[in-house]
Amino acid sequence: RECNRMALAVLEIRNWAADMVDRDDPLLIEQIQARLLPRRGIFANPDEIIVTLGAQNALYMLSTLLMGRGSRVAMEDPGYPDARSIFQLAGAETVPVRIDAEGVVTQEIPADCDFVFVTPSHHCPTMVPLSDRRRRDLLAGAVENDQIILEDGYDSQLLDDAPQQALKSIDRSGRVIYVGSLSKTLAPGLRLGYIVASADLVAELRALRRFMLRHPPANNQRAVALFLSLGHHEALVRKLSAAFAERRRRLVHAVSAFLPEWQSTDSAGGSSVWLKGPPGMDTKALADAALARSVIIEPGERFFAERENHVRFMRLGISSIALQHIEPGIRELATAARRRPAAA
Amino acid sequence: RECNRMALAVLEIRNWAADMVDRDDPLLIEQIQARLLPRRGIFANPDEIIVTLGAQNALYMLSTLLMGRGSRVAMEDPGYPDARSIFQLAGAETVPVRIDAEGVVTQEIPADCDFVFVTPSHHCPTMVPLSDRRRRDLLAGAVENDQIILEDGYDSQLLDDAPQQALKSIDRSGRVIYVGSLSKTLAPGLRLGYIVASADLVAELRALRRFMLRHPPANNQRAVALFLSLGHHEALVRKLSAAFAERRRRLVHAVSAFLPEWQSTDSAGGSSVWLKGPPGMDTKALADAALARSVIIEPGERFFAERENHVRFMRLGISSIALQHIEPGIRELATAARRRPAAA
Repeated sequence: RECNRMALAVLEIRNWAADMVDRDDPLLIEQIQARLLPRRGIFANPDEIIVTLGAQNALYMLSTLLMGRGSRVAMEDPGYPDARSIFQLAGAETVPVRIDAEGVVTQEIPADCDFVFVTPSHHCPTMVPLSDRRRRDLLAGAVENDQIILEDGYDSQLLDDAPQQALKSIDRSGRVIYVGSLSKTLAPGLRLGYIVASADLVAELRALRRFMLRHPPANNQRAVALFLSLGHHEALVRKLSAAFAERRRRLVHAVSAFLPEWQSTDSAGGSSVWLKGPPGMDTKALADAALARSVIIEPGERFFAERENHVRFMRLGISSIALQHIEPGIRELATAARRRPAAA
Repeated sequence: RECNRMALAVLEIRNWAADMVDRDDPLLIEQIQARLLPRRGIFANPDEIIVTLGAQNALYMLSTLLMGRGSRVAMEDPGYPDARSIFQLAGAETVPVRIDAEGVVTQEIPADCDFVFVTPSHHCPTMVPLSDRRRRDLLAGAVENDQIILEDGYDSQLLDDAPQQALKSIDRSGRVIYVGSLSKTLAPGLRLGYIVASADLVAELRALRRFMLRHPPANNQRAVALFLSLGHHEALVRKLSAAFAERRRRLVHAVSAFLPEWQSTDSAGGSSVWLKGPPGMDTKALADAALARSVIIEPGERFFAERENHVRFMRLGISSIALQHIEPGIRELATAARRRPAAA
């Protein structure tokens, strides 16, 4: 908030009021380069970074530019449903690839895919980090099969047990395009993300973005740049990460106490917890029953390529729940689950 | 600025920090509906309005949704070059139509065009308003030839001698899609515009926007909504319009005094002035010579479908020049024009 105020000082307004056409705020680029990327092991030049309207806009631009009818994209399954929709909207065919406790099963990525979309820092939605072995596999496969890897640094700003290095940081072949977001640590409503790619590709993305929306709002770019430059973001990330860890601990504890028949993935971190219900459970019906008790859960089926067989899963968000509401919430959820006749 | 501060109050942050997926700030929609549109004679329901990242993003979304290979779009010539590029990027063919003192020559719009793109409030770049006769012609032709009209309310928020009614306000056939912008009266850097169309089309635009960028930054939506709701925008528009009128008067006067061989269109208003130089003048060379004297002009050729034959034109912006710099600027420009050998 303070930085948003600073961005409103008269001198700063001169810096953001004008139309920037295809450029970004140089201070924000510098802060992404100097503060955000090195924490993930990525070192990039300013001309290798472009600011986007959030990670989703980044994926939309990349798919518009790179994909077309006939493109094949290997996708984690379960995986990020909006990415799947965006790639399909661009005309690409998406190919589901299984997930296990080490993340996406790289051996099962078809050689004829042109792109591989992955969330290696925290897998969306299970939060599992991609293992080192799989990371090496993925990169070697991309070289062998001439594939481009789209790395979504999902929840990657958080400091937790998930690996800190981005896949892009160990890529020597230039095949990894990195997508980052500030939605999870600042506010999703701000819509600020970025892409790290080759200077050539970034230049093409700028040309596309110029027609799509010219540039992300310059006042927000400047406010976030100031926020980063003063070190506030590091402090916020530490605070959020600690708060999320504590909420996750309480949530997993409450689930094992009140929903013992549900399995949660061993949470390495992130902003949500992924759960698998007992056989016959239908989380869509459960979501309605829970909502009647003021508890919000997210049914998991939308994360799967084939929804029908996956009505047992759900995701519980921890990014905005207060600590004292977690246990009562899970109690209510357990009551709702008991009252609900399981799906036939 | 005050409203941006208000949007930062804790209670308001709750209203914008969250991800809005495909929705807009209801307060902003309400303010557009109640304050901006009626001034142009447009009465729309909330579900007929969608907020965009500026007018350009509005045109990009409309072209992505409505146009494809084989689409033919009639365009004013000279006209808004970015619109031309956006339509071509979507695969459409653009067809130039001549401009005269009444605006676009509607009789020359080919019957086989699927779309007509017009800037009837102030023609871009000449600022001529489209005459009443031509407006009726345009609407009748659209009905007869089954055409969709894309109305860009270019500079339409300004209060000046140009007609106040939008083409959309007199459309009874539902063939006009209206695009508005807050760039000219607030700041282009904010990137806020809107589309007024049928509820069905707006729903489709929301579905597309959800994947393209989810929603325009919610903090800016809320800040502008507060600004509008307090009546500040009306006051700002009156102030800006009066300031622009005075600058335009001084500019036209200085041009007739120091550049007597240049013709300016009788300016009905708007944020710039359009000038035609003497035979042999090349405004690209003049722009370089003028820049060396700290005077910025915009060569006019980029507004034409065929650039080569239109190197005599230029546009002078008045939206950010101080009154006392106008006459000295035109003097410098005249000196630069005299020193420059005219293009062979």
